[in-house]
Amino acid sequence: MHSDKDITKEPDEGGKGSIAHKLAEGQKEISVAEFFEKNKQVLGFDSRTKTLIMGVKEAVDNSLDACEEADILPELYVKVERINEDDYNIIIEDNGPGIVHRMIPNVFGRLLYGSRFHALRQSRGQQGIGISATIMFGNKETGKPAHVMSKIEGTDAVAWRMNIMIDTKTNRPVVTNDEPFTWEGKDHGTRVEYCTKGRYISGKQSIFEYLKNTAIVNPHAKITFDDPEGKRYVFERATETLPIRSKEIKPHPQGLEVGDLMKMVNSTQQKTLKAFLKNDLSRITDRIAEELLQVSGVKDKKVVTVTREDCVALVKAIGVVKIMAPQTDCLSPIGDTLIKKGLMHVLEGMRPDYYAQPVTRPPKAVNGNPFIVEAGIVYGGELPADKEVSILRIANRVPLLYQPGACVITEAIKGMDWRRYGLEQRGGSGVPFGPAIILVHVASTKIPFTSEGKEAIANVGDIQSEINLALRLCARNLKSHLNKKEKKHKTHAKFEIVQQILPEMAEKSAKMLNRPIPDLSRTISKIMNVVWVEPKSSYDSKAKVKKVMYNIYNYTRSERSFRLHAQLPKEAVNESLLTSYFMDMNDEGKANWEVLNVPPFTSVSVSFDLIGDMADTFSESDIYLSGINSTFVMGAGPLPGDWGIKGMDVTESDMDSDLEEEEEEESDTEEDDDDSGKGGAEDDE
Amino acid sequence: MHSDKDITKEPDEGGKGSIAHKLAEGQKEISVAEFFEKNKQVLGFDSRTKTLIMGVKEAVDNSLDACEEADILPELYVKVERINEDDYNIIIEDNGPGIVHRMIPNVFGRLLYGSRFHALRQSRGQQGIGISATIMFGNKETGKPAHVMSKIEGTDAVAWRMNIMIDTKTNRPVVTNDEPFTWEGKDHGTRVEYCTKGRYISGKQSIFEYLKNTAIVNPHAKITFDDPEGKRYVFERATETLPIRSKEIKPHPQGLEVGDLMKMVNSTQQKTLKAFLKNDLSRITDRIAEELLQVSGVKDKKVVTVTREDCVALVKAIGVVKIMAPQTDCLSPIGDTLIKKGLMHVLEGMRPDYYAQPVTRPPKAVNGNPFIVEAGIVYGGELPADKEVSILRIANRVPLLYQPGACVITEAIKGMDWRRYGLEQRGGSGVPFGPAIILVHVASTKIPFTSEGKEAIANVGDIQSEINLALRLCARNLKSHLNKKEKKHKTHAKFEIVQQILPEMAEKSAKMLNRPIPDLSRTISKIMNVVWVEPKSSYDSKAKVKKVMYNIYNYTRSERSFRLHAQLPKEAVNESLLTSYFMDMNDEGKANWEVLNVPPFTSVSVSFDLIGDMADTFSESDIYLSGINSTFVMGAGPLPGDWGIKGMDVTESDMDSDLEEEEEEESDTEEDDDDSGKGGAEDDE
Repeated sequence: MHSDKDITKEPDEGGKGSIAHKLAEGQKEISVAEFFEKNKQVLGFDSRTKTLIMGVKEAVDNSLDACEEADILPELYVKVERINEDDYNIIIEDNGPGIVHRMIPNVFGRLLYGSRFHALRQSRGQQGIGISATIMFGNKETGKPAHVMSKIEGTDAVAWRMNIMIDTKTNRPVVTNDEPFTWEGKDHGTRVEYCTKGRYISGKQSIFEYLKNTAIVNPHAKITFDDPEGKRYVFERATETLPIRSKEIKPHPQGLEVGDLMKMVNSTQQKTLKAFLKNDLSRITDRIAEELLQVSGVKDKKVVTVTREDCVALVKAIGVVKIMAPQTDCLSPIGDTLIKKGLMHVLEGMRPDYYAQPVTRPPKAVNGNPFIVEAGIVYGGELPADKEVSILRIANRVPLLYQPGACVITEAIKGMDWRRYGLEQRGGSGVPFGPAIILVHVASTKIPFTSEGKEAIANVGDIQSEINLALRLCARNLKSHLNKKEKKHKTHAKFEIVQQILPEMAEKSAKMLNRPIPDLSRTISKIMNVVWVEPKSSYDSKAKVKKVMYNIYNYTRSERSFRLHAQLPKEAVNESLLTSYFMDMNDEGKANWEVLNVPPFTSVSVSFDLIGDMADTFSESDIYLSGINSTFVMGAGPLPGDWGIKGMDVTESDMDSDLEEEEEEESDTEEDDDDSGKGGAEDDE
Repeated sequence: MHSDKDITKEPDEGGKGSIAHKLAEGQKEISVAEFFEKNKQVLGFDSRTKTLIMGVKEAVDNSLDACEEADILPELYVKVERINEDDYNIIIEDNGPGIVHRMIPNVFGRLLYGSRFHALRQSRGQQGIGISATIMFGNKETGKPAHVMSKIEGTDAVAWRMNIMIDTKTNRPVVTNDEPFTWEGKDHGTRVEYCTKGRYISGKQSIFEYLKNTAIVNPHAKITFDDPEGKRYVFERATETLPIRSKEIKPHPQGLEVGDLMKMVNSTQQKTLKAFLKNDLSRITDRIAEELLQVSGVKDKKVVTVTREDCVALVKAIGVVKIMAPQTDCLSPIGDTLIKKGLMHVLEGMRPDYYAQPVTRPPKAVNGNPFIVEAGIVYGGELPADKEVSILRIANRVPLLYQPGACVITEAIKGMDWRRYGLEQRGGSGVPFGPAIILVHVASTKIPFTSEGKEAIANVGDIQSEINLALRLCARNLKSHLNKKEKKHKTHAKFEIVQQILPEMAEKSAKMLNRPIPDLSRTISKIMNVVWVEPKSSYDSKAKVKKVMYNIYNYTRSERSFRLHAQLPKEAVNESLLTSYFMDMNDEGKANWEVLNVPPFTSVSVSFDLIGDMADTFSESDIYLSGINSTFVMGAGPLPGDWGIKGMDVTESDMDSDLEEEEEEESDTEEDDDDSGKGGAEDDE
């Protein structure tokens, strides 16, 4: 395919002196460093304030990636020091694996250089631009080199330090003062220090906020921050467990374009087309490879003989043949418990009413890149009711601070009709109002950011649909909670009448008539006709112990048997769970209790303790009951369909059918499932 | 400064087998082509629909730039052809200067290659990415090369054609079928043809809309468009005059960072520091160079001995010493008349009430790059009153279709309190509602786009302030028009009573009393006490002739002398202007008439014709009157302060002072001038 002669080096042809020749003189290569130097806004460095934040962000993202790649619990130190007016000195140090000496200059002094760009797996940095650009802008604004120190693991390894400037004309590092040294008390890690012009702010969209949010969605990291006023903030670990390391995968055939396939075929190590399909793409078994060849009408052949037309036919066949969805071990979602924990951190003082059970969607792929969406909502309590809801946007565990208006997460939220779920929203679109925080995390091997500054996720239809699905599930939980609350409120009123006034009336009547007080329990049961679940809890934040108890009253006329179900934070469970009613708990922390033969008008109680960091992520109101028609249960929901473990069958028993008008729950929020896949999509792709 | 050894090629040091070494293996350079191939959303190619539009846009922008650089009136041909399903064939052909043979492969087949990146002057393309990326994505999606034809001026020049693919691993063109040919009927020009996957849409955010808007703000260009259904649209030229060609300038010292200055000093051809300052920067005279040296405390010295500390001191001095604003011949604003004309084009059928006089702000600089903001507003008529106003965003004469939410133009509009100017706006912020279209053009040697897709302008405080200032001036014109309209409406009612009913009453009374009908003219004059200007016009769109007439009634008790003033589209003026009242007209089309000694209760009329393309850009209601206190004038505004030519002095005469409550105009819209410079700025820089 390649031409033999390089015409770009030929002498000029005719028409000398023409404008075209004059214009040709100006044509030249633009160094990628110069390009970004002149377009700093695309990297998010568009003001003094953002320059400070973005620099810290790029360095921290790199440090976290490096630690996780080396299975090290991250311990980061960040210092922002004001030298004078708008001159700042920034230090970011990690306990990562360190960088080998010869690689240091390229990692920090060359744009578009890195290890994560070609790898198909989730990571924070992907571009190989961020930290080098940070150093380049520091150079530009102060004329000073950055100072990098790094030490790799191993007893025979010394630490190295050097000064790095970037030659923007060539996009190459210029190194001075390169020397080995003894790094006291440091086993391994990297430290980068640079000067820059900046403006330090606190509050929203600040370094502090970025670090706080980073700690929330990376609860395995410890981050220490010294601010310009000398204050130190320490964000401690919430867990000692590293997230499951994301694995590198091969490209998934879905979304491959003809040109991609041609290029892969041209550069494969495989000999035959079939071997190429099986070995260079993911999810292609021998059977599927056969099917692809058959459907495409392309015969298995030597890869060197594969033509463009063959590739066109194969791409068509990929769209027809059923291929398994991409594997997800390349992704590292945050998970329900940590999302909840994260939201709790954000709230600090404000105690919300309700944490909707966070939702993690099954993986999808866009352009061959798998992605997962997670979402969570908290509601009520002291959150401001008359403002727009807060939105926490997170991409590959990195909180996004800027450009909400350009982000698919905001788009997805704006496009939903939140009035159906109990939030205020003018005209049924736009950011809703109400006492709520909405968190959305998108994890992918390749987040389609709108710019190199990684501030917003582009409006990709498939991603928006998944966000909408996740949010709808969360919102339905919220709505169900609000319904339950209202129902409880109503029934409480009835209870007061029935339980207090009725006996009093009976007593008075009996006295007046001078007859014995009648036993009203059957009457009360007949009127109430419910099984009442009353959760109680207390939390000792010092000892990190949460005591949970459920009192379950049988206000029906018959003996009752049922099962209780709750999703517990596994890490927080201890032997206190092993009461006489306890049945079992699975790997996900789904726990089940069985209570048999509770006589009418009596109660039983189920209790347990949760201990440790995750203890407070459990919300006692998230309790489910099976074995009784859910319309007769107060204070617990019906067992969700996806619970995995079968609940107790409902005994279609002697429950009265004289139900009252309030016995309707959730049914009005289910109908929106049908359109869930469409609502969000804005465009094709 | 450069180190002698290249440590990146050294053998590994100790600690072999460590994780750091394993990670080092993955570290490598990322080709810029691969980078953008995997991040197509930053170039705006994030859906099949946008892929089609962006490709056409990049090619058209390039063609217009090339024509203007060569002083050629652009004539463009665009064809979008559907091959099947989502396969499209795109052709863009221009009559530009052509590209010399050896440059063709690099221009179309290499990213970050171009002539406009290093030049400080206004142009549409700056990055050297767009058209090559378009071809790269076409390659990727279809596996087919692009086909380029080009012919340069000159009798001895042949035309060349070739097929181009891009090798993304190396970011270099791969050329096949390179051959000379005879291009029938073509003197010079370039044609690019490529295949791509796409989805063609019409309506908003379509190729048609992009081309239409492009024609509007580039009225010197003729664009022919064949759409996939075989329909042909021709956007004819509105003017035969090329915009004044923007000139290349040297960097302005303002906004230079220490590192920039160091780099410039290191690479200058000048021998001494002072010579460098005078010759390599713009707006530095001998005197200012002296002053800079004195203020900075740096002695004039050989450039090779200039240190970082010298540069730090010089940058500080640049902030202190008064240096002239950047010259603006590097910019090419659209201008008042063409903005108006452009707005008229957009409106097509809908006839608005009012075109607010467009505003072109004086130039400012940000980071050493001069920029100019222009704005215009149309209002009323058949524009929808119950919707958000339409916003036309334009950057360097390129209409922006996407990402309004991320754009500083939208930010600026949202941040203004439009309720003060007669538009509806909930809570005084956000996009206002009402029958209006707002056009904003930002022209700069370097537009800070939020991404390489050039879809939105980043939120730079200085630019936002200028947009706000321009919009306020426009909005004040609008408000003044709305006030005038209301005042006219009120006075009309009074007029009816006074002019019709009063004489009738007098007649009847006289009849009844059998006495002669009294002359009421003095009485009416006393009651009315105004000079009434009544504009009339007709427009013959075929002949392109607009006839304008002003009837001016003196409804006061004295003889009146006054001057009329109007800003005419110069191109449309002919000898019909030379009536007896006509005084003069300046280069900008500001025309003045003088009318002397009009007796009370009589009228005079001033009329003229406007002819040609620009005739309809004149709005007859934009008329000013001097020589009488403006509160006594109906139907014409007071002479604006910046008119340049002095109006007639107001004769503080015998006008009655029994004015009524409606005699207030404009005063309530003036107060907002004070905060105009601040309102918009969001951040430092």
